[in-house]
Amino acid sequence: MSQFRIASLDNLVSQLSRLPGIGRKTAQRLAIYILKGSEEYAGALSGAIVDVKQNTRLCRQCFNIAEDTLCAICADTTRDSSKICVVEDIVDVMAIESSNEYGGVYHVLGGVISPLAGVSVEDLKIRELVERVRAGDIREVVLALNLSTEGEATMIYLSQLLKNHSVEITRIAHGIPMGSHLEFVDQTTIGRAIQARRKI
Amino acid sequence: MSQFRIASLDNLVSQLSRLPGIGRKTAQRLAIYILKGSEEYAGALSGAIVDVKQNTRLCRQCFNIAEDTLCAICADTTRDSSKICVVEDIVDVMAIESSNEYGGVYHVLGGVISPLAGVSVEDLKIRELVERVRAGDIREVVLALNLSTEGEATMIYLSQLLKNHSVEITRIAHGIPMGSHLEFVDQTTIGRAIQARRKI
Repeated sequence: MSQFRIASLDNLVSQLSRLPGIGRKTAQRLAIYILKGSEEYAGALSGAIVDVKQNTRLCRQCFNIAEDTLCAICADTTRDSSKICVVEDIVDVMAIESSNEYGGVYHVLGGVISPLAGVSVEDLKIRELVERVRAGDIREVVLALNLSTEGEATMIYLSQLLKNHSVEITRIAHGIPMGSHLEFVDQTTIGRAIQARRKI
Repeated sequence: MSQFRIASLDNLVSQLSRLPGIGRKTAQRLAIYILKGSEEYAGALSGAIVDVKQNTRLCRQCFNIAEDTLCAICADTTRDSSKICVVEDIVDVMAIESSNEYGGVYHVLGGVISPLAGVSVEDLKIRELVERVRAGDIREVVLALNLSTEGEATMIYLSQLLKNHSVEITRIAHGIPMGSHLEFVDQTTIGRAIQARRKI
């Protein structure tokens, strides 16, 4: 009795397993779905994967995803290019954009300084950020890195680095999320929220 | 301030969202991973998707996945073709195969009879099963459908349908799963296990 295997299915399961958060079992379920699905869907999905690599690149200025040399945000002349919001990753750009509260431009660092993970200053787009601040007419740099130890350290590093330039350095507020009940919020967040309290 | 959108990324997110169990947020995370990943990976993944559709079909005899007109199991002459295990789906074939306990062949119904979901006898490969039992030298039909109400009803229907043929009809055992503690097993399963108790 030989083991029942389908080479092309095994290969698809392996490829899908490489996606973040997709284990072997999930990959198998997805592969079977694709296998049993329509020819059209398989074509549309595989085409979309190829397209996203072919039609996108990193913005020359801010390292966000772009369809051209500049991303849609940097190319948008209605946006306030004197404000740069510094984020770790392109997903953070999307998250902030979805709030519709920010009208400036971005700078995607590509991570945070993390000696343990082997990420040093040179691995990030920090030099390019300083260059933008030096070259352009920048009035404000908004630091919006995640509040991990490494994120905090990177924000301190950046504010030290930029303090000699005539630019205002701010950071986004941390506090109680909308809709949360105080009793379910962790104590660090409550502590932050109390420290950052404002007059009403 | 225009909304920041990348058409090819949006399209990939939409296509990934159609996969079972993949919501919009997960699809976005996967799409970003593909976007930021290597050209090689995107090529390998999209190629694997196309391949799995091009290189597979349904087995003419048992409706399992096949790379040829017959699946690897039906084509394997070392297997006992006088035993047919009836399952709902190709994933069930894989699950049973992974146990290495079954040496017969299969018949994939493609679902169970479910008037609520609009699945009737004609939508399943039931006629083909009866045909196999009638035509071939079949000694045993093992019913291995899932224990849903519809699965149970389908098993009763099949056993009625096949009882006039000189074939033994069995069903796989249901009971306490290996490694489970009795106190954590639901009462229906315990009831089944007691009913199906065997002399030792």
